[in-house]
Amino acid sequence: MLTERLSKIYRAAGADALYTTTDYLRRYLTGFYSTDGFVLIDGERRLFVTDSRYVEAAEKALDGSGIEVRNGSYALAEQLLSGYRTVAVPFELTSVTEYRKLEALGVQLKDSMPAFTDAMLIKSERELAEISKACAIAEAAFLALLPEIREGMTETEVAARLEYEMRKRGASGTSFDTICAFGANGSVPHHETGETRLRFGDAVLIDFGCKVNGYCSDVTRTFLFGDDGKHAAFKKAYDAVYAAHELVKERVVSGMTGKEADAVARDRLREAGLAEYFTHSLGHGIGLNIHEAPNLSPRGETVLRDGMVFSDEPGVYFAGEFGIRIEDSCYMADGKVRSFMNQTEKKLVIL
Amino acid sequence: MLTERLSKIYRAAGADALYTTTDYLRRYLTGFYSTDGFVLIDGERRLFVTDSRYVEAAEKALDGSGIEVRNGSYALAEQLLSGYRTVAVPFELTSVTEYRKLEALGVQLKDSMPAFTDAMLIKSERELAEISKACAIAEAAFLALLPEIREGMTETEVAARLEYEMRKRGASGTSFDTICAFGANGSVPHHETGETRLRFGDAVLIDFGCKVNGYCSDVTRTFLFGDDGKHAAFKKAYDAVYAAHELVKERVVSGMTGKEADAVARDRLREAGLAEYFTHSLGHGIGLNIHEAPNLSPRGETVLRDGMVFSDEPGVYFAGEFGIRIEDSCYMADGKVRSFMNQTEKKLVIL
Repeated sequence: MLTERLSKIYRAAGADALYTTTDYLRRYLTGFYSTDGFVLIDGERRLFVTDSRYVEAAEKALDGSGIEVRNGSYALAEQLLSGYRTVAVPFELTSVTEYRKLEALGVQLKDSMPAFTDAMLIKSERELAEISKACAIAEAAFLALLPEIREGMTETEVAARLEYEMRKRGASGTSFDTICAFGANGSVPHHETGETRLRFGDAVLIDFGCKVNGYCSDVTRTFLFGDDGKHAAFKKAYDAVYAAHELVKERVVSGMTGKEADAVARDRLREAGLAEYFTHSLGHGIGLNIHEAPNLSPRGETVLRDGMVFSDEPGVYFAGEFGIRIEDSCYMADGKVRSFMNQTEKKLVIL
Repeated sequence: MLTERLSKIYRAAGADALYTTTDYLRRYLTGFYSTDGFVLIDGERRLFVTDSRYVEAAEKALDGSGIEVRNGSYALAEQLLSGYRTVAVPFELTSVTEYRKLEALGVQLKDSMPAFTDAMLIKSERELAEISKACAIAEAAFLALLPEIREGMTETEVAARLEYEMRKRGASGTSFDTICAFGANGSVPHHETGETRLRFGDAVLIDFGCKVNGYCSDVTRTFLFGDDGKHAAFKKAYDAVYAAHELVKERVVSGMTGKEADAVARDRLREAGLAEYFTHSLGHGIGLNIHEAPNLSPRGETVLRDGMVFSDEPGVYFAGEFGIRIEDSCYMADGKVRSFMNQTEKKLVIL
């Protein structure tokens, strides 16, 4: 299937050769991770060139894949590339400096980014399995974190503990900077985790995820650290966000656009009088990047299809009071939205 | 000093306006961290534009700095930029896509990267303090890790614990993927941390670092997990690497090139008959990036000066047997090399 993928992207890029030095695109094309190297594909040949640190492992991993591994550096790329008339590179990921070096070889450059974006929209079984693993680790880590949370801990300490629990379970790292927000800090959707200390009765919002073999998970949970009896407005809003979150899983189907999916949640929050507090999009695609296509927003034109992976994350924010977001990483299968996340509770948890 | 820095880079870039959207350059120019925004400087005005999430915090942080903060997006950049004849952007960090959008505004583009690279070579007192903090956290975390190490732990578990200890002490994350290598795995300079379990008598190589306010630390320690009496060759090589590492601190002085600094360590290892096992450079610059100028290698032409920060990391690697690397993050002051690292032992430690 890897060779099919390669051939498809090569043809879609519409050049004599497809060339990339970008880490995550190399990984996408070969399934092999390295911090150095390039992939070069033409009508006959599929070549992965990397330095001596990786060659042996790459040869083992790519044996029988139809991808040839060679030891080499940029000098080899120049030598090989100068033989083509047209070469496709991803313009969004190619610097002006690199572009000019390639132009100087006398080749005409085309943009391969649309071909990649298009192909990467639909995940393979293997990719879904990696994302599923990243989600399972994130959820298990969260469950291990909960009993460790104590009054007086800082946001940073809670985030550090959660990241440790993910790493211990085999994650290679976080898929983005963990957001841990206590109390009113939750009302800033991208709050910078800091030294605020946890107090009894605080709402806690944690947005986090990890990477497994390059693939990301993304999840947000909001819960109460004890109930001080002052949470009537919070609980009412929580129920509405929860209803919107669940409605997406129920109502969004294959064939709808990202915009229509977003409207499912937005309309539900509007009914609850909360539309103006839902200040971001419903969701984003997830894969080797934490943010990729499709875009589930009021401007999302992509049609949702089986094999796409995206977040379902409605949220409402009351400045200076609290914020609530409930997020699962989801995928579409058999025309319906399925969540990768089944270990953790989405209804309101009071610790 | 911030405004001086801005003016200097602006003048060196040699265009009507200096413009950048790159995270770490925005941080360098303003001292303020955000995941979105741009900086635009012309002869009269110093502008930092970011989205609503950051505006309030940015205004507070930059009050009195001479940098004006505005809420806005790329549309505002286009509007402002179209008024200039020439605009400087960092070519190495500007994608072809972005470059073409800017060209379409009718401005002529110049490369600001040399001006940035040049300015960033010499760290300010504030920058040195941030790096020092990142180094202190890395060392303290390492000291907290040592008593936690047990036979049977995996490389990943040890790395996870170390990262947790750094995070708990206020690091925002790692400055690169932690390398933890047991036994013969240490002979691969960039070993991928994995599921190998620790055994009595193993040599352990850990290369790690963390970030504080964007600034990196970088340190490597190699030690023995118990002495099984089979380490004569290891100990002899360790002493030579240690001697080379220390000699750099003694002999390298302001005015020498990166090449000359590299030779100090390389010659010392040659005397010990180990030159051919020292398969990488002596060091690299450290700052907002984990690898930046100056380059302390056989090809390093940069002249070392006060205020530069770089690693001192000689190492030797015996394939299938063991690897040894001893690395400190260092800086130059009063013409001499000073280490940021004074909490941890550099002589051979046997746990």
